[in-house]
Amino acid sequence: MRRFATERAKKLISSYHHQRSLLSSSQSPRFFTSVASDPSSVMSSSSPPVTLDTINPKVLKCEYAVRGEIVSQAQHLQQELQAKPGSHPFDEILYCNIGNPQSLGQQPITFFREVLALCDHPSILDRSETQGLFSADSIQRAWQILDLIPGRATGAYSHSQGIKGLRDHIAAGIEARDGFPANPNDIFLTDGASPAVHMMMQLLIRSETDGILCPIPQYPLYSASIALHGGALVPYYLDEAKGWGLEVSELQKQLKEAQSNGITVRALAVINPGNPTGQVLAEDNQREIVEFCKNENLVLLADEVYQENIYVDEKKFHSFKKVSRFMGYGEDDIALVSFQSVSKGYYGECGKRGGYMEVTGFSADVREQIYKVASVNLCSNISGQILASLVMNPPKVGDESYESFIAEKDGILSSLARRAKTLEDAFNSLEGITCNKAEGAMYLFPRIHLPQKAIEAAKALKKAPDALYASRLLEATGIVVVPGSGFGQVPGTWHFRCTILPQEDKIPAVVSRLTAFHEAFMAEYRD
Amino acid sequence: MRRFATERAKKLISSYHHQRSLLSSSQSPRFFTSVASDPSSVMSSSSPPVTLDTINPKVLKCEYAVRGEIVSQAQHLQQELQAKPGSHPFDEILYCNIGNPQSLGQQPITFFREVLALCDHPSILDRSETQGLFSADSIQRAWQILDLIPGRATGAYSHSQGIKGLRDHIAAGIEARDGFPANPNDIFLTDGASPAVHMMMQLLIRSETDGILCPIPQYPLYSASIALHGGALVPYYLDEAKGWGLEVSELQKQLKEAQSNGITVRALAVINPGNPTGQVLAEDNQREIVEFCKNENLVLLADEVYQENIYVDEKKFHSFKKVSRFMGYGEDDIALVSFQSVSKGYYGECGKRGGYMEVTGFSADVREQIYKVASVNLCSNISGQILASLVMNPPKVGDESYESFIAEKDGILSSLARRAKTLEDAFNSLEGITCNKAEGAMYLFPRIHLPQKAIEAAKALKKAPDALYASRLLEATGIVVVPGSGFGQVPGTWHFRCTILPQEDKIPAVVSRLTAFHEAFMAEYRD
Repeated sequence: MRRFATERAKKLISSYHHQRSLLSSSQSPRFFTSVASDPSSVMSSSSPPVTLDTINPKVLKCEYAVRGEIVSQAQHLQQELQAKPGSHPFDEILYCNIGNPQSLGQQPITFFREVLALCDHPSILDRSETQGLFSADSIQRAWQILDLIPGRATGAYSHSQGIKGLRDHIAAGIEARDGFPANPNDIFLTDGASPAVHMMMQLLIRSETDGILCPIPQYPLYSASIALHGGALVPYYLDEAKGWGLEVSELQKQLKEAQSNGITVRALAVINPGNPTGQVLAEDNQREIVEFCKNENLVLLADEVYQENIYVDEKKFHSFKKVSRFMGYGEDDIALVSFQSVSKGYYGECGKRGGYMEVTGFSADVREQIYKVASVNLCSNISGQILASLVMNPPKVGDESYESFIAEKDGILSSLARRAKTLEDAFNSLEGITCNKAEGAMYLFPRIHLPQKAIEAAKALKKAPDALYASRLLEATGIVVVPGSGFGQVPGTWHFRCTILPQEDKIPAVVSRLTAFHEAFMAEYRD
Repeated sequence: MRRFATERAKKLISSYHHQRSLLSSSQSPRFFTSVASDPSSVMSSSSPPVTLDTINPKVLKCEYAVRGEIVSQAQHLQQELQAKPGSHPFDEILYCNIGNPQSLGQQPITFFREVLALCDHPSILDRSETQGLFSADSIQRAWQILDLIPGRATGAYSHSQGIKGLRDHIAAGIEARDGFPANPNDIFLTDGASPAVHMMMQLLIRSETDGILCPIPQYPLYSASIALHGGALVPYYLDEAKGWGLEVSELQKQLKEAQSNGITVRALAVINPGNPTGQVLAEDNQREIVEFCKNENLVLLADEVYQENIYVDEKKFHSFKKVSRFMGYGEDDIALVSFQSVSKGYYGECGKRGGYMEVTGFSADVREQIYKVASVNLCSNISGQILASLVMNPPKVGDESYESFIAEKDGILSSLARRAKTLEDAFNSLEGITCNKAEGAMYLFPRIHLPQKAIEAAKALKKAPDALYASRLLEATGIVVVPGSGFGQVPGTWHFRCTILPQEDKIPAVVSRLTAFHEAFMAEYRD
């Protein structure tokens, strides 16, 4: 309130000066009249209807580091580079802050884009030129999809959960993946996975004493959406020494502690493969987690958006639904929500905003409430819906596009695996950096063991030490990474998240720029 | 809680029976063990983690009539019709419940879809076949748009507010419309207008004592989003006798009453052209509204999604921003948010989920908070962003597509005007129905003066009388309308909302079916 009062005072002073000058020029009677006739309206016009002191404090509290201060700094540098080429020791900004593959040059999967284009403009489907421009199976798939849409109207709102026929395709894809049945009525198509996570938080969080167990480090969508919905984030720490392992004893400990503090823990969020940590859970571990949720009566929120991104032979992706069903647990045993997105995988179609959640183990009346919330926003975008169906049902052996599709897919995934390994090795070769393997997902989360002098320098600047490191890295190299403090970490440890997404021909430069910067930074602050 | 206890009791009983049968077949030791070793886990497994009693009560409270009970009834009838053709006295369901033009056969604007298809699959832009399939200016526009997108990556997340170059186009479109400058940094692109409205509600509502002035009747997005964010809807009644006029005296009265009840009124929502009421505000009226918001220090939330839908010569659309600027009010004088969508107008691209809000008169620090909330969902879908830029910058005189574009646009708008008039006349010709003109938007909101016997019959069925009417109308004709009670109305009056969207060749049948039903209904319940 003090700031508020000060601002108002400043405004009143400037109004006074303004008024004087207006009086002498005899303009703007409106202003003068309002001063004379109604002093209360001066009050109101000088205090804006919305200030930081009067907005929803939940909004103020929410943080989202992935697009936070470091990105503003990067955008500023980018403008400087454009205005004055050569003004910095690099010629481009390399955005390794966010899992946004196509922004770094990854090409979309041709088949997917062919189908999308044909569904956007179906009147070319019958034209002979189209045969020359599009693959036969993309034309066929577009017809098939259009036939699933009432009136073939790709510009109409769909069912609030998404077009039924597309949900059938997705359910079939889930069945093929898991070997267990999937029900299209359990699928809610959404504009990417983020709105689905919000929807579940909105459903589960009643007040600040409702808690959600979240991994630390975590993807800040979780902390942000819990803050926006006014709940409590109940942290459980991943064990960095065990490759970011998820220990059920830790879940148990944090649950009990939260409960003893009066928190009603409602759900457990698990990100597998991990973000920002890149670990892939072992099946045994997943079984323990399912058992834990069942015993503790928690909803299991399974963020499985990186299900296609696995880079090590010894690990496989198993959906939590498959693991639960394999354990013999059905609808009545466990409440489970699985999130999937078209933004990740080998497709990386972030800008299309497609995704879904598969909601199982909820009663019909609760499901109706989820449906109602989905209805208030009418439906997710139809191109994103179509893409979600394609991602879960890509071309099959024998389709005209199959071979080129597989070549594109394998090319992207094997390149990501090589990039992950190269960057991991590079980080581990540096003094004072240790880095777990990225078994999956799109990130490395190296730990930086900073000299005491660097920590003190950061303190003097009122910055987290890893934020100082990331900011200096950006200034020196143009590489944008996100400080570990944005994801949460064991107090006193420092990290950053770096995507593995720069194109392969740029990786050597990334490595050499990182290395040179890091050595200089360490030398500068050596104790 | 009583229901909860009853459900648990029922479940425990069925568990008991289940257990007995399991014992005899000696299967599933898991269940039995958990009973024996840990009675608390029986409690937990018999009480699901989420029930109606334990979800966020704000979700329970939220209602959204446009996709409510009447739509479930319609979907049920549609399934019956498919399974058993001829089982009802109509052969199709006509969805007049929602402003979804393409679901009723409206064709998309060719130019818009050409550009979208080319942006989805840019690799065909250089191919010679493309010249034969697409107009020259759509190819040119696609190139132009791709050049605005960093790396031409239509599959990348954009800036959280939307692609800067597209916001430039939109700002230029707003300037051309209003004759006053627009700033691309004021534009936030969103997945349709609904998420933008939610974002503002989230920002403004701190607790149940924060209120938003909303018209009654209102589009239920407002009541739903206020309920979801836990605020108070402060109603102001539109004057049906004056063509759904908006009287500032009514605003003043309701504001004072809310304030005397301890409500802090934060904003005024105005829908112009009106939904569900179809009126178009006169400029003088808009000036009074702006003055009211300025004097009372309220944010003006201007829902202007029907800005292209005006059907009477004597009315024109004026944006509230234009009116404010014309009055001499700038950034420091009034906080104003204008919502626009690609779902309405002559384009009707509901399924593309494109839209924007133009946010003016907010301080930089508050704007940063809006940016942060937008960032948590990363960005709106790129096709929707592109479409929003096209809608605000359609083909111009001299462009190859211009003439066909204008023919399509005028064809749709003039047909909508004819349909609005025909349906209005039809309603007014019926006994006990009075209907204001649809000057704009996509709806009529006729009042039904129901016989006392019908009102009593509804009461006996625990239904609102207009809900009974709508349900009976659907059963008899297959026409889906939304009961007025879903929008709010003066107590004791009854209405329904009916879109003007059935294609013109279906209008005679709609009119004759409506007429026959209404006459029979009135005869059945005549006093």
